[in-house]
Amino acid sequence: MNYKERLAGIRSQMKEQGISAYIIPSADPHISEYLPDRYKCIYFASGFTGSAGTLVITADFAGLWTDARYFVQAEEQLAGSGFELVKLKVQQAPEYIQWLAERLPNGAVVAYDAKLISVGLAQLLEQSLAPLGITFATDRDYLDPIWQNRPALPTAPAFLVGKEITGKSTTSKLADLRAELKKFRAEYHLISSLDDMAWLFNMRGSDVKCNPVVLSFALISQEKAFLFIDVSKLNEEEKNQLHQAGVELKPYEAVERYLSELPEKASIFIDPKRNCYAMYKLLPATVRVIQETNPTTYSKAIKNEVEVENTRQTMVKDGIALTRFFKWLEENVASGGITEMSVADKVRGFREELEGFVGESFDTIAGYKAHGALPHYKATPESDVELKADGLFLLDSGGQYRTGTTDITRVVSLGNLTDDEKTDYTLVLKGMIDGATARFPKGTRGYQIDAITRKPLWDYARNYGHGTGHGVGFFLNVHEGPHVFNPTPTPVDIELGMITSVEPGIYRPERYGIRIENLVLTVKDEANEFGEFYTFEHLTVALIDTAPVKKELLEQRQIEWLNNYNQMVVDRVGPHLTADELAWLKEKAKAI
Amino acid sequence: MNYKERLAGIRSQMKEQGISAYIIPSADPHISEYLPDRYKCIYFASGFTGSAGTLVITADFAGLWTDARYFVQAEEQLAGSGFELVKLKVQQAPEYIQWLAERLPNGAVVAYDAKLISVGLAQLLEQSLAPLGITFATDRDYLDPIWQNRPALPTAPAFLVGKEITGKSTTSKLADLRAELKKFRAEYHLISSLDDMAWLFNMRGSDVKCNPVVLSFALISQEKAFLFIDVSKLNEEEKNQLHQAGVELKPYEAVERYLSELPEKASIFIDPKRNCYAMYKLLPATVRVIQETNPTTYSKAIKNEVEVENTRQTMVKDGIALTRFFKWLEENVASGGITEMSVADKVRGFREELEGFVGESFDTIAGYKAHGALPHYKATPESDVELKADGLFLLDSGGQYRTGTTDITRVVSLGNLTDDEKTDYTLVLKGMIDGATARFPKGTRGYQIDAITRKPLWDYARNYGHGTGHGVGFFLNVHEGPHVFNPTPTPVDIELGMITSVEPGIYRPERYGIRIENLVLTVKDEANEFGEFYTFEHLTVALIDTAPVKKELLEQRQIEWLNNYNQMVVDRVGPHLTADELAWLKEKAKAI
Repeated sequence: MNYKERLAGIRSQMKEQGISAYIIPSADPHISEYLPDRYKCIYFASGFTGSAGTLVITADFAGLWTDARYFVQAEEQLAGSGFELVKLKVQQAPEYIQWLAERLPNGAVVAYDAKLISVGLAQLLEQSLAPLGITFATDRDYLDPIWQNRPALPTAPAFLVGKEITGKSTTSKLADLRAELKKFRAEYHLISSLDDMAWLFNMRGSDVKCNPVVLSFALISQEKAFLFIDVSKLNEEEKNQLHQAGVELKPYEAVERYLSELPEKASIFIDPKRNCYAMYKLLPATVRVIQETNPTTYSKAIKNEVEVENTRQTMVKDGIALTRFFKWLEENVASGGITEMSVADKVRGFREELEGFVGESFDTIAGYKAHGALPHYKATPESDVELKADGLFLLDSGGQYRTGTTDITRVVSLGNLTDDEKTDYTLVLKGMIDGATARFPKGTRGYQIDAITRKPLWDYARNYGHGTGHGVGFFLNVHEGPHVFNPTPTPVDIELGMITSVEPGIYRPERYGIRIENLVLTVKDEANEFGEFYTFEHLTVALIDTAPVKKELLEQRQIEWLNNYNQMVVDRVGPHLTADELAWLKEKAKAI
Repeated sequence: MNYKERLAGIRSQMKEQGISAYIIPSADPHISEYLPDRYKCIYFASGFTGSAGTLVITADFAGLWTDARYFVQAEEQLAGSGFELVKLKVQQAPEYIQWLAERLPNGAVVAYDAKLISVGLAQLLEQSLAPLGITFATDRDYLDPIWQNRPALPTAPAFLVGKEITGKSTTSKLADLRAELKKFRAEYHLISSLDDMAWLFNMRGSDVKCNPVVLSFALISQEKAFLFIDVSKLNEEEKNQLHQAGVELKPYEAVERYLSELPEKASIFIDPKRNCYAMYKLLPATVRVIQETNPTTYSKAIKNEVEVENTRQTMVKDGIALTRFFKWLEENVASGGITEMSVADKVRGFREELEGFVGESFDTIAGYKAHGALPHYKATPESDVELKADGLFLLDSGGQYRTGTTDITRVVSLGNLTDDEKTDYTLVLKGMIDGATARFPKGTRGYQIDAITRKPLWDYARNYGHGTGHGVGFFLNVHEGPHVFNPTPTPVDIELGMITSVEPGIYRPERYGIRIENLVLTVKDEANEFGEFYTFEHLTVALIDTAPVKKELLEQRQIEWLNNYNQMVVDRVGPHLTADELAWLKEKAKAI
């Protein structure tokens, strides 16, 4: 079946059942960002492979609502599918709801599969559309009947991670969680989010590409902790460890029964953003539901001293790999034969040499010249191009190590840069420096750091259509909440111990793209009569190319920062390099 | 009765009626910010005169929750009242709700007067406390029975303002409003907010000190527009004008009957932030309520060309008055006899000389030395001090003119400044310049301009405990929404035509306070491949004292801005001054 046929198959079921609109979000029953193959529903229906989007199908229109990171990619991938791109003005905003409100008549029925819709989204749909006389059919899966050879759920093994890595035992994490639940007067707590459970149970796996998580659900109360998981993923020793922490293992599917059998007057804490509506619907009607962000989401965002020290060491390893890669690239690009795809392999190869490396933290983005202008570009055999000793090359890559997660973007000059390229590179660097060196009062949120990062670009009438930064997990998801650095008014404070990326960019479609990204750790700064101030410690340890810098655009403090930073890279990565590698690095790190 | 007796009187009614907690917000049935005397309930109960706060009374605790602008003032005014100050971490956040949630047992009853509680607040209280088993008695006024000689409602005359001032007729404004209501499928629309009605009906009055508004309610439908008002406030000619615009005048109290008699299946648009819960409760249970921000709130925030040009001219007038005042102050301070109170009178006197001046837009804040550290300081006979030719003097004042509203803060050196004073003054100036000269993309919100304004202060570990700026009305409220420049994540875009203040500050209690404030107008900047950019035009036209500036702390572009700005003041205000005044101004405006 091709995409048009699949779309027709969906529409015929809709017509049969009197459905005016069908919504397919990018989600699984865990409301994950990156999905197991079985739940790549949007890809199945439309051919779009981006990590964020929503399909909405009516009798006469089929659209993909997605954000600026994916506009170019979506136009290409949707061609001939029957779906059209609808450009979101605001990343992740459910703008299709307003679109439906303006078109659907009183009495229309909107359908979706409650396993893919978060509790919060189901409530928003209800609040927005029910007043207009619209009703919902929430248990409709129109894909399964037409999905031949649908992939099964992943079965990769899981394993437990020790306290020398995580810094805190499951017993201790459960005790803290239970204390939080008590404050909310919640007797039970359902967790569907895979990274929250990986953190809580100090458990990792490979059920989702690049995210070392394990398909599971958890139901916690003051006395009991149930982990619903394919128990064959764990060995006996690990099952014992969990039992000793008071965790009872039950089959993955059993969570549905446990939810539907909760006592009548029970109270249960559920994060509306990270649990699917299907789970919510299983609860007895008399159960009181407390809807708040998972306490584990806040706890795991604040890295403890063990995690921080492990991360610092992991960053040095990553720096070694990147140093070797960029040296290799510079020395070999002129000989020919290096393409974007081969670069991605080469970078992975250098990381694989390092102890503790597990796999990539996301698909490497290797963009030569114009391809750098596509923020989430992934080279394919069709798009792959050869790198030459000319122009800009952008590399956004990262690793999962046993001792931390990395994510770093560098842009290097391969030769012959234009004046525009240098101006834009320098402006992006100014933004990154200002964001990553900010001093700010306790209580500051990501939207404030985002504005400070953008200002150097706005001053020159430039901007970028993605956020400034995302939280990063510890040997966990490379994108982790609850905090985020973007213009969206997310009311989450930046706390000590949080790890975040700072990655501004300037993209000129069909010409070049620039993004410079460091990960930073929130640390204490001074405290005085005006309050407690925080700042950032740089975690990423990798050279920032000075060749594209236009010194006259930098302020003195920014020039000093750049020189000190590159010298710091030499100091920390140097001891691990060969004499030849070190000489190369020192030359590149020379002060401007 | 003194305050302790009043508190006891409230508590005895609570006890009688089995009430665990009583909430008294700072509001009237129009949910106004500045209140007519009849509704100064917080002042009546506790002695606190600030414009923002909430009293919460239980059997063993009586607290005033208010923000940083008022901490010092509250401590002073609450002494001996039986009420204690509870410091809000976030301005206007209803933090007392969490406080109640942590203390009240299951089954407790919380009481309030629904005429003083907004619809949104009533819903928030319900959502937050009902799950904990708390119920509400919403019709309890414990003040009226003990309020001897309670002031009556104000009866000042009202008048209509012509199109040469407002730029748009009531007929036209009603047509736009009706088109908006249609989009929301709302047949009726209730307006309680006095400034929205003043704008809609091109009507002004003096029912609230400093805000030229008229006590009224309005009920709008596609065919009818009812204005509920004490009709004796308008003359025959004006009543006719309104009739011609299709507006029917009804008695102020009649609004209650009209609401309770709405048709069963009616739909009504109500702004939950700006209508009281008592009005909401009058609606028949079957009526569908659409809760959104008043369309008029958005419309009136965007000043049309007539209002903008009128405002520019008003600003020149205000600049004349301030030039004369600061010249007079500098020339007379050494002779003695000038106090903060006499200064406030003198400033008003200079403004009164100008054509079109109606009254002050808020109580003048004249703070000499340490008094400048109290952001909302108002000199009283007890606190009044004499100014000397020494130290810093802060003046925050403004006027209502027939042709616009002004609000400006200047700090001047009266002599002998310390190094700290100069550093802090310069940092505040840097912040104001960066905020007021920002270039930003369409879609930017106030919390982003707020961060850009604060950065120069944060870089030196300074901060201020109030917002960066507020919207300003046109011959209307000096504080006007929907936009605001502060750290709170308010999702309102900064639109072309909006007028906002930019007023950072640094406050050193018991030493000095600095705040520098200009009003700015949002205007178009360039448009390019990155989108449409906006920037600000400076509306305020008054000298910025250069004596306290530490030039080495300013960037070159900031020095240029300051010199150009002061020269612009000379150019625009100069033609209206005497030769003597102009000479003084030119000397003060000399480039640094």
